Amino acid sequence: MSSERKAHVEASRRAYSGRIVKVDVDTVRLPNGQVAELEMIRHPGASAIVPFASDPSGDDPQILLIKQYRYAADAFIYEIPAGKLDGGEAPEACARRELEEETGCTAERFEHLCTFYTTPGFTDEKIHAFMATGLTRGETRHQRDEVMTLETVTLSRALELIRTGELNDAKSALTLLYVAGFTLSR
Amino acid sequence: MSSERKAHVEASRRAYSGRIVKVDVDTVRLPNGQVAELEMIRHPGASAIVPFASDPSGDDPQILLIKQYRYAADAFIYEIPAGKLDGGEAPEACARRELEEETGCTAERFEHLCTFYTTPGFTDEKIHAFMATGLTRGETRHQRDEVMTLETVTLSRALELIRTGELNDAKSALTLLYVAGFTLSR
Repeated sequence: MSSERKAHVEASRRAYSGRIVKVDVDTVRLPNGQVAELEMIRHPGASAIVPFASDPSGDDPQILLIKQYRYAADAFIYEIPAGKLDGGEAPEACARRELEEETGCTAERFEHLCTFYTTPGFTDEKIHAFMATGLTRGETRHQRDEVMTLETVTLSRALELIRTGELNDAKSALTLLYVAGFTLSR
Repeated sequence: MSSERKAHVEASRRAYSGRIVKVDVDTVRLPNGQVAELEMIRHPGASAIVPFASDPSGDDPQILLIKQYRYAADAFIYEIPAGKLDGGEAPEACARRELEEETGCTAERFEHLCTFYTTPGFTDEKIHAFMATGLTRGETRHQRDEVMTLETVTLSRALELIRTGELNDAKSALTLLYVAGFTLSR
């Protein structure tokens, strides 16, 4: 089986179109020749940011976390700042905008860390993860359905929140483990 | 703002109900008093497994990865074995069943690692991650829309695939970084 063989879409039907979520039901000939009807949630993609509040090369640097109300969890959960790409927006521009909206901060530098599929079994959503350094604080501009507070913690504290399960948002945990394990250890 | 304040659901409408995906549009009074209409993809949850093919306490142990065709990516991507909870199934039972279906392996021991929200902005999906040890090989039982091959790699090779972006599935990358960073280093 070659990695080059792709699916052939035989039919596609938009089954639901909402404010954020669009569901397509596609009839697809898979690389193994089987024909399957697949539900796919179409998503524009998103960017997420680890904002460093102190020099990331320092001993146990400080980062910003948000604690945001999520209806999916019916709880306030720890996350890194993140948000959807607005119509054709470049991932770094989205990271810059979301960082400012959610934390009030502008940053001198953005460095791309990694890009991943959030849950490829049913959505094409990809998240582009960045680190932001050289922060200047300003005013937040939350949307009316965003309920969040900002916390400054050390990176080691953030990793401890992941270990204990208190930080249980996948994009945030993955990005923090990535930057701690691969980027800062360079 | 207390973490105890929860949302109040004022109305709920099932906007789409498919084979895997169900979309609810809920009118919700948020903890800040604002009323918002929120789209929520209801998902039964899933389990994911890091299968250790050699002693996990050994130097650079071997694990199993699957390379699976995903229509969301229109590509074969690296993942750890995983699958949805079947109607009320316990997470560990699901992990045991999915490991056997996707890799043909049974395991002597399952250890829970972490549980996380995949993308809490629009779905309530939670993934329960386990490590499996003491493997015995057997026959795979793929579903007809599953197209995958099995690869045995060292844990350090898997981490390198994450670092380079070749392994770009969030649940797999997060679970592998978790087990390498927190569980095996105990």
